Amino acid sequence: MARCVLLDLSGVVYEGDHAIPGAIDAVGRLRTAGLGLRFLTNTTRTPKAKLIERLQGMGLEISADEVATPAQVACDWLNARGLKPHLLVHEALVGEFEGCGGTTGDAVVVGDAGTGFTYEAMNAAFRKLVDGADFLALARNRTFKDADGKLSLDAGAFVAALEFATRREATVLGKPSPDFFDTVLESLGATREEAVMVGDDAESDVAGALAAGIGAALLVRTGKYRPGDEDAVEPTPTAVVADLAEAVERILG
Amino acid sequence: MARCVLLDLSGVVYEGDHAIPGAIDAVGRLRTAGLGLRFLTNTTRTPKAKLIERLQGMGLEISADEVATPAQVACDWLNARGLKPHLLVHEALVGEFEGCGGTTGDAVVVGDAGTGFTYEAMNAAFRKLVDGADFLALARNRTFKDADGKLSLDAGAFVAALEFATRREATVLGKPSPDFFDTVLESLGATREEAVMVGDDAESDVAGALAAGIGAALLVRTGKYRPGDEDAVEPTPTAVVADLAEAVERILG
Repeated sequence: MARCVLLDLSGVVYEGDHAIPGAIDAVGRLRTAGLGLRFLTNTTRTPKAKLIERLQGMGLEISADEVATPAQVACDWLNARGLKPHLLVHEALVGEFEGCGGTTGDAVVVGDAGTGFTYEAMNAAFRKLVDGADFLALARNRTFKDADGKLSLDAGAFVAALEFATRREATVLGKPSPDFFDTVLESLGATREEAVMVGDDAESDVAGALAAGIGAALLVRTGKYRPGDEDAVEPTPTAVVADLAEAVERILG
Repeated sequence: MARCVLLDLSGVVYEGDHAIPGAIDAVGRLRTAGLGLRFLTNTTRTPKAKLIERLQGMGLEISADEVATPAQVACDWLNARGLKPHLLVHEALVGEFEGCGGTTGDAVVVGDAGTGFTYEAMNAAFRKLVDGADFLALARNRTFKDADGKLSLDAGAFVAALEFATRREATVLGKPSPDFFDTVLESLGATREEAVMVGDDAESDVAGALAAGIGAALLVRTGKYRPGDEDAVEPTPTAVVADLAEAVERILG
């Protein structure tokens, strides 16, 4: 039996500017059941405070300390090493790095920069890496479901571009980094086996969680989910469910 | 003994707007010796006619039918299949695709688009690929030596980005595609074993040529070469030489 539930946000709880039908109630049922709850998002186009405000506006009960973002982890990482971030992130996320890091050396930080992924910005990051900067990625997601309902390129594609050119591997700080899951579980006082992850990204949310030792991981058919996603990953999901409402039914039942 | 020599251009014969010292003479010596000669370039920021004009301006004896470019091969490829190109190439190269292809379907063609690699352009190409378009790459080079003398991101990084996001593999038409080498050798009436390749890109020029069955491949220490490049590839170069002049000495001696 699960002691805590880790929920992806975009594509699971909300999509664009509205909550996914049944999701708000489903989160409420988890709270009523007394399960530990954390929201883990790789969305790096919105500052955390704004994201929470937007979710509350949709009727979701959620507080800042329940939300884990890669930017937060990145700041801790930079502070621990005294490294100065060279940001290749969305302009909306720049503020999250104010006062982060030190002056010991450089670290390139790649998030979902969106239209900030110009050739010039990519090449500047590349040259920093060639000069020896550390290489951080806030996420490695391939795609996300865009406002127009179609898939769009996510940060992972541009991380892959820089990895290919430099022959180096980025340190990924968001899902599916085991450290990211562990940090969240520590705040809940739970073990990996006691947790269930629910997400719409078969790779980062589901296979990633299982590979990191999370007890179970459910793939929802909302958000960016496309038929067959569950067959393209290893380990395969514990179960594939229609949406968060069905996921919560399973977890509680 | 080699019957023909395949030369990379940028970083071997010229760099920026000048010929590499000794290179013009070296090419002349190959001609005098009666060896078959072809220039194979993955440079996809300049139309072929302009490139040849520029090289002639540097004092190099070179004719259009001696130069093989991926754009040329891509046009043949598109025509053979009747596919319409969706171009993600440098604006200077667009003209090379005028009248190319048909209307049977789409093919995304990725070259070194330079500042044309915007998020919007990358995402448009990605969506074409998701919709089932064929996936062509004019080159897969990781880096090139830029006008300021530093390494910059080449087409390969952006090809890798699209490959990662789509989980597909591009068909590479330039070096190190064995088809590209074969097309060139056919025009010379030579076998793979009778050819020597000279290049500054340890991967695309040298290891690629050897993997494609070319008899020998020499890596020059000019252009984008960096110490240790020869150790990062497999197969390793037949020899590493200072420049084209030394390469020609070896080939003729």
